[in-house]
Amino acid sequence: MSSAPDTSPPHLAALLGQNAALIDSPALVVDLDAMDRNLQRMADYAKTRGVQLRPHAKMHKSAALGLRQMQAGAVGLCVQKTSEAEALAAGGVNDIYISNEVIALPKLQRVAALARRLKSRGGRLAIAVDHLQGVAALAQALGGGENLIDVFVELDVGQKRCGVAEPADVLPLAQAISRQASLRLAGLQAYNGRAQHLRTVAERRAALDEVIARVRETRRIVEAAGLKLPLVTGSGSGTFGLEASSGVFGELQAGSYLFMDADYARNEADPAQPAFEHALFVKTQVMSVSKSHVVVDAGHKSHAIESGLPHVHGEALEATGCNDEHTTLRATTSAPLPALGSTLWLIPGHCDPTVNLHDWMIGVRGGLQAGSVAELIRVDARGCVD
Amino acid sequence: MSSAPDTSPPHLAALLGQNAALIDSPALVVDLDAMDRNLQRMADYAKTRGVQLRPHAKMHKSAALGLRQMQAGAVGLCVQKTSEAEALAAGGVNDIYISNEVIALPKLQRVAALARRLKSRGGRLAIAVDHLQGVAALAQALGGGENLIDVFVELDVGQKRCGVAEPADVLPLAQAISRQASLRLAGLQAYNGRAQHLRTVAERRAALDEVIARVRETRRIVEAAGLKLPLVTGSGSGTFGLEASSGVFGELQAGSYLFMDADYARNEADPAQPAFEHALFVKTQVMSVSKSHVVVDAGHKSHAIESGLPHVHGEALEATGCNDEHTTLRATTSAPLPALGSTLWLIPGHCDPTVNLHDWMIGVRGGLQAGSVAELIRVDARGCVD
Repeated sequence: MSSAPDTSPPHLAALLGQNAALIDSPALVVDLDAMDRNLQRMADYAKTRGVQLRPHAKMHKSAALGLRQMQAGAVGLCVQKTSEAEALAAGGVNDIYISNEVIALPKLQRVAALARRLKSRGGRLAIAVDHLQGVAALAQALGGGENLIDVFVELDVGQKRCGVAEPADVLPLAQAISRQASLRLAGLQAYNGRAQHLRTVAERRAALDEVIARVRETRRIVEAAGLKLPLVTGSGSGTFGLEASSGVFGELQAGSYLFMDADYARNEADPAQPAFEHALFVKTQVMSVSKSHVVVDAGHKSHAIESGLPHVHGEALEATGCNDEHTTLRATTSAPLPALGSTLWLIPGHCDPTVNLHDWMIGVRGGLQAGSVAELIRVDARGCVD
Repeated sequence: MSSAPDTSPPHLAALLGQNAALIDSPALVVDLDAMDRNLQRMADYAKTRGVQLRPHAKMHKSAALGLRQMQAGAVGLCVQKTSEAEALAAGGVNDIYISNEVIALPKLQRVAALARRLKSRGGRLAIAVDHLQGVAALAQALGGGENLIDVFVELDVGQKRCGVAEPADVLPLAQAISRQASLRLAGLQAYNGRAQHLRTVAERRAALDEVIARVRETRRIVEAAGLKLPLVTGSGSGTFGLEASSGVFGELQAGSYLFMDADYARNEADPAQPAFEHALFVKTQVMSVSKSHVVVDAGHKSHAIESGLPHVHGEALEATGCNDEHTTLRATTSAPLPALGSTLWLIPGHCDPTVNLHDWMIGVRGGLQAGSVAELIRVDARGCVD
């Protein structure tokens, strides 16, 4: 029934320099040429609009890609989790914002240790709070010291998730932060994730009008009490043009722009925002054929479907079903279905959780079909949920 | 912007012997006492009904848990992917069935190597086919030899996914397999995944009536041509009692029974099947509170939601939204919402893709609240999609 474990080496889906056509499937493949264009386009846009860019690294979870975004002008990276921050710091990223609340004291002790470590390396850690208890616990974990961490107060700006409910609720938190020598009151976290995926430009503008009004009201209240919120940070790949032109947001947190996904492709394009290309694909193979449909060898353990089924890149095929290791495709025209063994490229429904399924991304240059493997990108923070 | 990577050790969510209350969140936690009861209950059931049990290890992806199922009487394990088979073989499992088609020649060469390796260890590899091209490629990859691998012909029994469309289509495949000395015609793969999740017993019985009729018809055709299909294999945790009493199925592939999930809990219970307990939980903490809802620190990067949102174990709370790292909960009664920092236990919507998000499962004995960490279970085949 059992024997000693064998020691066969793990399978590698691709080798550097290999023709892209030889990448085994399923595999998560990045079109590095498209990614570079996306990266530069957003960096240029932020620079032109005079706002900081701090891309959300919960999307790619890769120190190498984050450092590339910073080399192009980003001031640092956002993450959602303490362990993500630790993984990116271990990969050499020194300016990190945990744009989320942390409550457990053991985890706040890790936050405190990381804040000191980054500061000693000339960098900086930041975090969000939305409760006085969170401020007190953070200060307790830091245990003294001066100006060790930047703290943003999170305001709910329409998502009904985290953040204090009303602009007036920000003030007592800002006051509590400013009373702690170890904390620096860095500003306001104001992100509406739901607004990113409203389909029409008009809906997104209406949602952002409310966001911006709440931010202005918050600033007015806090400044009237003699405090400052130096920076307002937020926004995502669906609305960043609206935050950038708001006059109140100083920092953009968009992340998906680097890869894009099928869900963002369902948004009506905003002509006021630069457009981005799909750069993230799941290479897959037709493993079963029938008269009515074909089945490919990548299911939702290869590409996340919680925001919808994937698109099939450049083919008259649509996904009609998905299980752990299978996606079923049907023709959208009268053209014949692809043959058994055919290669297809899926554009995942949602890039963030798709990347999190994989330990490596295979970077290709020169095109998905004719190019070659130029880089193996480690997903440093894969599985870092705590 | 960057510096040399630091060398901090990775964070461990739990240590052996630790009080379960100290497990950091989010974490994937197995109630080992409940799991053991599920394991034994299914083993006893299969034995009593005189059918083989070959649990699907795509669910737990763990060699240690698979070996425990085999110690209790399972004849081996199923997997869906070549790399899953490799990972379990590396962990000491010697009898593995890839209940799925493999088409790419490089991957079939890995299948062939694994078949020889397992045979040399006194074990066995099996695989499914649904196309003559698959049979030919498999034989080509094996490159000669005798009786190296068991081959099941897959018949579509209502899921409209893989498998040949009609009972009569099985015969040419069975004939092709029996002409190859390296292949052994092992039987018929007949699994209807969709039927597992039909909500009423009546719907599941109707679906299985069709499955069983198609299997009988297939056997009749193949036997009339002078061949035998020694074993019919299939079934899942929603219908296994129907296959077990069919008189034609000789092997059950159920996997979810070991942990169960919120989706299976939505099925009307079949009194003809033993019942199983929830044994898989995501430990989570309330990280943000408001008048209308609370937010916990585990989102769909911690628990898969493609089959529905999680249940909150033992609380009058329901999940109303979920993002990458957040799940929003609202009260189902007029009882007060839990306080900031409270521990809650989520029952994931779907166990298989939830386990695949984690590198480790934390095994607890003595109860989720009062017990202690008895075992750290490695998810050996995590991310093995190729």
